[in-house]
Amino acid sequence: MGKYPVSPLAPAAFPELPVIRGASFATVAAGVRYAGRTDVMLALLAPGTQMAGVFTRSSTRSAPVLDCQAKIGGDSEAGAAIVVNSGNANAFTGKNGVTATEAVTRGAAEALGLPVERIFTSSTGVIGEKLPAERITAKLDELKAALDEAAIAVAAKAIMTTDTYPKGAAAEVSINGETVKIAGIAKGSGMIEPDMGTMLVYIFTDARIARPALQDMVSAISDKTFNCITVDSDTSTSDTLLMAATGASGVSVEAGNAAFEEALHGVMLDLAQQVVKDGEGATKFVEVTVTGARSDEEARIHAKSIANSPLVKTAIAGEDPNWGRIVMAIGKSGAEADRDLITIRFGDVLVAEKGWVAESYREEDGAAHMKGQNLSISVDLGLAEGAATVWTCDLTHGYIDINADYRS
Amino acid sequence: MGKYPVSPLAPAAFPELPVIRGASFATVAAGVRYAGRTDVMLALLAPGTQMAGVFTRSSTRSAPVLDCQAKIGGDSEAGAAIVVNSGNANAFTGKNGVTATEAVTRGAAEALGLPVERIFTSSTGVIGEKLPAERITAKLDELKAALDEAAIAVAAKAIMTTDTYPKGAAAEVSINGETVKIAGIAKGSGMIEPDMGTMLVYIFTDARIARPALQDMVSAISDKTFNCITVDSDTSTSDTLLMAATGASGVSVEAGNAAFEEALHGVMLDLAQQVVKDGEGATKFVEVTVTGARSDEEARIHAKSIANSPLVKTAIAGEDPNWGRIVMAIGKSGAEADRDLITIRFGDVLVAEKGWVAESYREEDGAAHMKGQNLSISVDLGLAEGAATVWTCDLTHGYIDINADYRS
Repeated sequence: MGKYPVSPLAPAAFPELPVIRGASFATVAAGVRYAGRTDVMLALLAPGTQMAGVFTRSSTRSAPVLDCQAKIGGDSEAGAAIVVNSGNANAFTGKNGVTATEAVTRGAAEALGLPVERIFTSSTGVIGEKLPAERITAKLDELKAALDEAAIAVAAKAIMTTDTYPKGAAAEVSINGETVKIAGIAKGSGMIEPDMGTMLVYIFTDARIARPALQDMVSAISDKTFNCITVDSDTSTSDTLLMAATGASGVSVEAGNAAFEEALHGVMLDLAQQVVKDGEGATKFVEVTVTGARSDEEARIHAKSIANSPLVKTAIAGEDPNWGRIVMAIGKSGAEADRDLITIRFGDVLVAEKGWVAESYREEDGAAHMKGQNLSISVDLGLAEGAATVWTCDLTHGYIDINADYRS
Repeated sequence: MGKYPVSPLAPAAFPELPVIRGASFATVAAGVRYAGRTDVMLALLAPGTQMAGVFTRSSTRSAPVLDCQAKIGGDSEAGAAIVVNSGNANAFTGKNGVTATEAVTRGAAEALGLPVERIFTSSTGVIGEKLPAERITAKLDELKAALDEAAIAVAAKAIMTTDTYPKGAAAEVSINGETVKIAGIAKGSGMIEPDMGTMLVYIFTDARIARPALQDMVSAISDKTFNCITVDSDTSTSDTLLMAATGASGVSVEAGNAAFEEALHGVMLDLAQQVVKDGEGATKFVEVTVTGARSDEEARIHAKSIANSPLVKTAIAGEDPNWGRIVMAIGKSGAEADRDLITIRFGDVLVAEKGWVAESYREEDGAAHMKGQNLSISVDLGLAEGAATVWTCDLTHGYIDINADYRS
């Protein structure tokens, strides 16, 4: 943290996050790996809080991820707590990983008077080093004493590894004339020191939502937000999203409530895009939209193929409206396409249609769009109605600088 | 060509390629795009020559690729010819692409007295620009007059786009006391000017082989050679491999002849590895072997996931023995793995076993291996007997320099 400058794509300021009744936060400098900064956060959640989660699909996922997944459907009566440390991912640490996770969850359960099944932990940082769990457990009483409903912004800082800025987003929703609030924080995808690639997301609401409805909402919206971003096609062993609904507002939200879903979608999309905007070495934020595919899933395959192509991403870094590479990325994706039906646009500029460059296209128009900081690439395949949008950044010398550094 | 220095991984010299009876070559400077160099090659193949081919699976493949694919099974009586131009890929050029391919094949058929069905063409270079076919057809008589059995080495140069060195390989095989010869040339994967990413491979033998046997051999060996290399995970619209068996030695090779297959495998692997060694910005050549997978196909998925990971490739560029990123790449591949059974080696150095760093591992041993120019990464998954090897290069600032340049 601090080794690299703040991303040029960072928001102007950290947003004002509302107090979520039933959720309080504390942070501490436990010295897990970093010196001179907070590196452990505790979130305490009121009795009755419903938890939902989405986790990495990696087959080499970390001990804390496996522990969270096992607990996510549990009884909510007692409340819950989330303990997160930065600096050490506790991933690929063999049996030590399980031992360390157990030590933290058992310690937190005792300190907070909660069942161990209601303690959710995440670890982010270096892979393959033993987590010094005792440094975390030694600070649990201090954390408990410091709990504060207004401390979510400092929590966003404690979970950073090599992020260049903390990430937060919030929304308010009116339900039958009453207001519920949503606030979320996220970290990633720095990768600024080797082995640090985890994305962690924590979202809180004071709405009262049944667990199945909450999980359905979180899973569905994740697919359209966090599962639609890519920095470099690499997937962490520790990615975790947890959402807590405390119910403290007394306002019930039923499954399928459009206003709440829209607000939650907004918060999750904002956080997801903030993660991309902190991508290693990023100088451009790029929205890739594919329409006219055989299905939404095929549209996403094409969009991801474009967004992950090193040749597309380096062309964007070079401000080159290189539509030939878009054609290449569509061709290699494995999903269906007909070369002679493809239409490509950069922003509003029609670049190619019917399998060749558009008659109206002038290279300087494409080049002008590429000079912006927020770019859009749209492809219509002309086959059917499938559509998808993904978000990515460019591939620059900064990425190589950051990731070819020897760990030290 | 010439804009970037010769790859540090290039062979010391272009190999001595034998004359293949029944095959003759000519090159010319036609000015398709480049000035001051040869850019069209003609190979004329004797009557009875059997042709086999392997082509890009891209759904946006170019007009010459589609034309070659349609012709590959045709009657061999009349002989055949291969016409290749560099500088323009004739890809994503709409109807113009078909028109230009027809002009070249018809012109060559007339000049050489061959049926148009026996003229195979490839084009490599910029995507999306109209191919000036007339510049090629104007030179066909000159090419015919220059045909020379010994000119295969100059042919290797004419097909280069932004390769930093020409690529050739050869073998001799003894079949029942008689000798047959194999010689091949390849180009790729420069990408040194945007839109130039085609891999072209032409292999010639004077053995007599029936077309189905030849095609089976070429397809099977391609899967273990050219389909096991990756520079940047991007797939060209024009990749083409053609093999011609002239039969001029009078020596018959039957399907399944182990000596011939081994020799052909050697030539194809050599050419494939030369393509990787000319990867954009490459400074390290890396062999990735995965064993113990559920199947050979699952082993290849894991190996490709490692070889294509930007984080693994930048770590290699930084000479960082970053085994955590190997674990990450295995985890994200989608193929089966059990975190706690994985063994990882860099060269002979045991790095990780049973889900954690090996007790015997010393970081300086891993670091010492990474300082070499030819690296090996081996992963055993401990699940079953599936195995695969792929070859790749590192991801360096050179790649960004080359590909973030604006086309000009």
